[in-house]
Amino acid sequence: MGMVGGGQDAFIGAVHRMAAGLDGSMQMVAGALSSTPEKAIASGKALGLPEARCYGTWMEMLEGENARPEDERIEAVVIVTPNHVHFPVAKAALEAGFHVVCDKPMTCTNEEAAELVDLQQSTGRVFAVTYNYTGYPLVRQAREMVRSGAIGPVRKVMVEYLQGWLATPLEQSGQKQADWRTDPARAGAGGAMGDIGSHAENLASFITGLQVAAFAGESVTHVSGRALDDDTSVLLRFDGGATGVLTASQICPGSRNGLRIRVWGETGGIDWQQESPNQLLHTSLDGPDQIHRTADADLAVAAAEATRLPGGHPEAFIEAFANIYRGAAAAMHAGRDDGETFGYPDVQDGARGVRFINAVVQSSGQGWTELSQ
Amino acid sequence: MGMVGGGQDAFIGAVHRMAAGLDGSMQMVAGALSSTPEKAIASGKALGLPEARCYGTWMEMLEGENARPEDERIEAVVIVTPNHVHFPVAKAALEAGFHVVCDKPMTCTNEEAAELVDLQQSTGRVFAVTYNYTGYPLVRQAREMVRSGAIGPVRKVMVEYLQGWLATPLEQSGQKQADWRTDPARAGAGGAMGDIGSHAENLASFITGLQVAAFAGESVTHVSGRALDDDTSVLLRFDGGATGVLTASQICPGSRNGLRIRVWGETGGIDWQQESPNQLLHTSLDGPDQIHRTADADLAVAAAEATRLPGGHPEAFIEAFANIYRGAAAAMHAGRDDGETFGYPDVQDGARGVRFINAVVQSSGQGWTELSQ
Amino acid sequence: MGMVGGGQDAFIGAVHRMAAGLDGSMQMVAGALSSTPEKAIASGKALGLPEARCYGTWMEMLEGENARPEDERIEAVVIVTPNHVHFPVAKAALEAGFHVVCDKPMTCTNEEAAELVDLQQSTGRVFAVTYNYTGYPLVRQAREMVRSGAIGPVRKVMVEYLQGWLATPLEQSGQKQADWRTDPARAGAGGAMGDIGSHAENLASFITGLQVAAFAGESVTHVSGRALDDDTSVLLRFDGGATGVLTASQICPGSRNGLRIRVWGETGGIDWQQESPNQLLHTSLDGPDQIHRTADADLAVAAAEATRLPGGHPEAFIEAFANIYRGAAAAMHAGRDDGETFGYPDVQDGARGVRFINAVVQSSGQGWTELSQ
Amino acid sequence: MGMVGGGQDAFIGAVHRMAAGLDGSMQMVAGALSSTPEKAIASGKALGLPEARCYGTWMEMLEGENARPEDERIEAVVIVTPNHVHFPVAKAALEAGFHVVCDKPMTCTNEEAAELVDLQQSTGRVFAVTYNYTGYPLVRQAREMVRSGAIGPVRKVMVEYLQGWLATPLEQSGQKQADWRTDPARAGAGGAMGDIGSHAENLASFITGLQVAAFAGESVTHVSGRALDDDTSVLLRFDGGATGVLTASQICPGSRNGLRIRVWGETGGIDWQQESPNQLLHTSLDGPDQIHRTADADLAVAAAEATRLPGGHPEAFIEAFANIYRGAAAAMHAGRDDGETFGYPDVQDGARGVRFINAVVQSSGQGWTELSQ
Repeated sequence: MGMVGGGQDAFIGAVHRMAAGLDGSMQMVAGALSSTPEKAIASGKALGLPEARCYGTWMEMLEGENARPEDERIEAVVIVTPNHVHFPVAKAALEAGFHVVCDKPMTCTNEEAAELVDLQQSTGRVFAVTYNYTGYPLVRQAREMVRSGAIGPVRKVMVEYLQGWLATPLEQSGQKQADWRTDPARAGAGGAMGDIGSHAENLASFITGLQVAAFAGESVTHVSGRALDDDTSVLLRFDGGATGVLTASQICPGSRNGLRIRVWGETGGIDWQQESPNQLLHTSLDGPDQIHRTADADLAVAAAEATRLPGGHPEAFIEAFANIYRGAAAAMHAGRDDGETFGYPDVQDGARGVRFINAVVQSSGQGWTELSQ
Repeated sequence: MGMVGGGQDAFIGAVHRMAAGLDGSMQMVAGALSSTPEKAIASGKALGLPEARCYGTWMEMLEGENARPEDERIEAVVIVTPNHVHFPVAKAALEAGFHVVCDKPMTCTNEEAAELVDLQQSTGRVFAVTYNYTGYPLVRQAREMVRSGAIGPVRKVMVEYLQGWLATPLEQSGQKQADWRTDPARAGAGGAMGDIGSHAENLASFITGLQVAAFAGESVTHVSGRALDDDTSVLLRFDGGATGVLTASQICPGSRNGLRIRVWGETGGIDWQQESPNQLLHTSLDGPDQIHRTADADLAVAAAEATRLPGGHPEAFIEAFANIYRGAAAAMHAGRDDGETFGYPDVQDGARGVRFINAVVQSSGQGWTELSQ
Repeated sequence: MGMVGGGQDAFIGAVHRMAAGLDGSMQMVAGALSSTPEKAIASGKALGLPEARCYGTWMEMLEGENARPEDERIEAVVIVTPNHVHFPVAKAALEAGFHVVCDKPMTCTNEEAAELVDLQQSTGRVFAVTYNYTGYPLVRQAREMVRSGAIGPVRKVMVEYLQGWLATPLEQSGQKQADWRTDPARAGAGGAMGDIGSHAENLASFITGLQVAAFAGESVTHVSGRALDDDTSVLLRFDGGATGVLTASQICPGSRNGLRIRVWGETGGIDWQQESPNQLLHTSLDGPDQIHRTADADLAVAAAEATRLPGGHPEAFIEAFANIYRGAAAAMHAGRDDGETFGYPDVQDGARGVRFINAVVQSSGQGWTELSQ
Repeated sequence: MGMVGGGQDAFIGAVHRMAAGLDGSMQMVAGALSSTPEKAIASGKALGLPEARCYGTWMEMLEGENARPEDERIEAVVIVTPNHVHFPVAKAALEAGFHVVCDKPMTCTNEEAAELVDLQQSTGRVFAVTYNYTGYPLVRQAREMVRSGAIGPVRKVMVEYLQGWLATPLEQSGQKQADWRTDPARAGAGGAMGDIGSHAENLASFITGLQVAAFAGESVTHVSGRALDDDTSVLLRFDGGATGVLTASQICPGSRNGLRIRVWGETGGIDWQQESPNQLLHTSLDGPDQIHRTADADLAVAAAEATRLPGGHPEAFIEAFANIYRGAAAAMHAGRDDGETFGYPDVQDGARGVRFINAVVQSSGQGWTELSQ
């Protein structure tokens, strides 16, 4: 794989490399690791890339790799840049015949998202969007349980993603992660909603299979001087009548990475929290609560296949992320873009996420809005 | 005290008696314990009341007690009936010169609530509304912390009250608690919103001191055939700019009595859960999370005064409820209605709660509504 | 009831009064509430006892009450003094024809314990020892589960009771609770072992029904200048081959009242913690862990009968203590000393506890010791 | 690295490979992956090793690698076989000039352990023993806190390692992991004590720096027909007067991999549990409990250096294991065996563990035994 973005100082680039490497799913052999050509090349060298494949720009990388013999060029382009760069790179990569692994949110605008959907279909390349939380074994267990009726028809969904790292105007200190995430030109229209609300939406969709039919939300900026929302809450109506609440906030001091989803159906409920990812609470109308744990013998196949260790040996963020890579790599080897079968979020998931972010932010404070899927 | 309602089969009447008796704050010496005179009298006898003070109706009780010598009559009327009876009894009790302890929601309509506010002021009698969760030591600690600036100016409030016992059409089985709580004629306009959403509103108000300025909510009935909401969620805007989410639902299987409140300010946050009431999480921008526990030596005076046992000896629902009684009794003995000083929710809290319930239910699904306090 | 000890400054006397009063099981109508006659009388008055029944000494109380008409005298003597006074009062009370409720450990010596056993049998009076933790609904559930085979034949028991309040030489500050508990003349031979190790032993016995056949332990004093153990650990062999570990320590800073018991059998296990008393973990060879919660519909009758509130309304220390009083009062009304049927620890439990404490402390550091029951 | 053992069906070999690969610390380039030559070679091929470096036996591997040019041969031998093979391979590897990474317990006998200590010293090669739990960031934080006096001089240690997978005679089903672990010829003298008790001893030593001066323990076999202990508990006396309890049991149904350590000093305590590895409880004489979380800004350098992700992104078993590899690899690159500096357990830790296991098992049931270090 060739990586775009993710050089020194970047957080998520290293995660992608560890996740790709954990199972040997993919290996980074080329890169344009920064938007500054000198940094891009220096980062590549520092990470041990062959000098010839340390590119100054992603355009050079696509060109350079395509100039190599077919069996010596990269198979996939991994995009871990700020959001506004996702689209041009993904578009060019698809057009150049590469598979794509793209961070979320997939694009800044609905139009860009739609264009990538079309392009993926016309090229047939694999397109994975790293909604990494769907890689956790017990998230997959939750999905299997909800979809197979273990809690009955779904009535209510509560999903929250709470962080505290933007409770202060951190972007004013020059901190790199805060800087671009609070800049509409690079992050897109959503702040907290785009950065983490998108994960919340995806997780709810992944587990329940339900579509949001309408919503009423409010995106607020609590930290003065900030250009994007840092706190968004949304009431949801799903197709079929289920109701929901989604909250994404980055101004909650003490919340580190508090993603939690609860789903209740007519006969039971499930509760999963990302910071304690190896347990899944299953409740019922009567009787004791049940705690499923990663690697338990009675879990669904999809959960078991996402598990590497025996019970009580906790698996966590990197392993979950690696499951997305494993799925995407399997699809690439099979030459077939099929996230459902291989286990990764696809371009449709990415596009739906972009539409949701933009709809919520644009309709903030306006009451109920219908959402066409 | 003389109790109205709360005979055999009732849940909350026994709680009131245990709470009143725990510290000897009050003693039930008279009662009209059921709306059916024969049952009322039989219940009184079964509970050991003197035969002469087992009344068939609350009107008889007020009359009978007032006919007794002043130092041999009840001091207070405790109202633990279905909601629609609160108002007439409370009104008559105040007019007859008695103090009142009334269950929540205080009345069914805003007009009734306003009338009781006026009547309390003109009579000067003590009027306590049993928002019992404010009696927990660590709820009082949370209030002291938030109000004294321990988390900075408040930005966000998340309060939820989740139950599962009405996930099925239990009222159709004749279960008494479910029966009247789902009947608009007896419960008022709110189902889940009235029964438990009112506690959630009160808790947020108690801890933060903030007023709801506007809201957008939706009250839904998931169980078919039910006449009142069983699932309500509300987005909140508080005076001063804080945002919030309130959820009250009774269709979450496995949720027993899941009242939780989280409040974040500019520099920290607090998190309290009713089912684990002896711990209070306090988070900050940096540094470790802190867990305050009931009876810790460094808690606020208000928390310490609400505590009966040394650390690690858990105190719970009845003890918290008893703190409300202790406060109300102290006020009665002092002859002064002052919930703030003595530690009980007063008629103003009760009226605010009624207005909020009614506003939420009436504006369900209509987008943002301003709330005048 | 007439209380001996438990005046002002005492902790446990107030607990006994609240526990007795919660259900109206018993009412304190007489007392000799301090070893100092003036304080005893003043305490009685302060607590609202009739002046004639505020006694200066327990001998006067027994005499005075026996001089009253039979239906106007106390039924039971409640002993909440330091340990060394338990025996003389209990003996005299039984001999005077009263029922007895006695704090633990029942006596200081094995001989005293044996004498009370004999005396109870000859008098037939009810004798309850307040091993109060057996009053928790989920402890009773655990007992039912273990004894009915829900976890298979028992193999291993781990019980620990950890506190931190004696991590400093608190007794040197004159703190009353620390003072007598670290004084062999008043506490008996056991420090931590006597004060809290006795509860641990009792809980293990209550839940499993197993007898300790042999043990090897060590009682240590970590705080210099202290005369009794403040840290004891014991390896256990039970009749039938189960093994166990019991730890009682009062020098664990941050541990408030950390009583926990885990029992594993051939096919499952249970885990209960006193500071979170409303949940009981039930594990099995395969499959999810299960959490039973107080008031769940599927609990055993013995657990249900010890429960006052619906699910999610936590019950705690005082309610559990009150269950012991309720049981003892029922036995008194029935005129039959039968802790098994009525639900309270009896004189045999008390005597076994005393023997165990003394054996452990006397054999400290000496390797394995057989224990004849 | 060249791996011995760890072929198909093995659990721990794959863990070593993932741990070594996560940071690219080491790469498996050769292997003798089974004691059956055909399987060994087939496993190597299946894992993508070059055919020439798929060896049938470890002797062939050592010989074959040494026949290669110095810069093309393996640097280290990784030993992940059943215990009885550790010694001959480690001895031969050191003698052949290779570094060694060896699973625990290091050897079966004290004499073998002593010989490896001598051999490491004479060869100067790096020797790492994979007591992997010392790789967790918060274990390193706990060590820094305890050793720097954050809880005062240590008084009490409680360490437990509980599993349930051997609650049935699993070895009789032919399950591979159970088979050799319950066979004295392959596992050594300790069953539960050797397999997991060794981790418990190491963790206590790592965090506190204290040496066990004497102990009294009992090793029991609960599952009939089993040749080794499956349940061991030990009372400990440490140099300097601290006391302790160590429990290792594999017959606790529902316990998956329950390693927990608590240490209390004169002024505070720490509590860490392997199944929730990203939080460390820190208690004190007064004041709130504190929860440190992985990646918190105020953690010790040693903890921060063992951390890969921002707060709230859980790290777990594989990441901790990888930290051991990272340390060992750094030592190899520096050409200096120094576990303290580079962060891995060394041959002395391994030898101390072996001596402790054997002493406990041999002295089972015999009362107190002095342990010379």
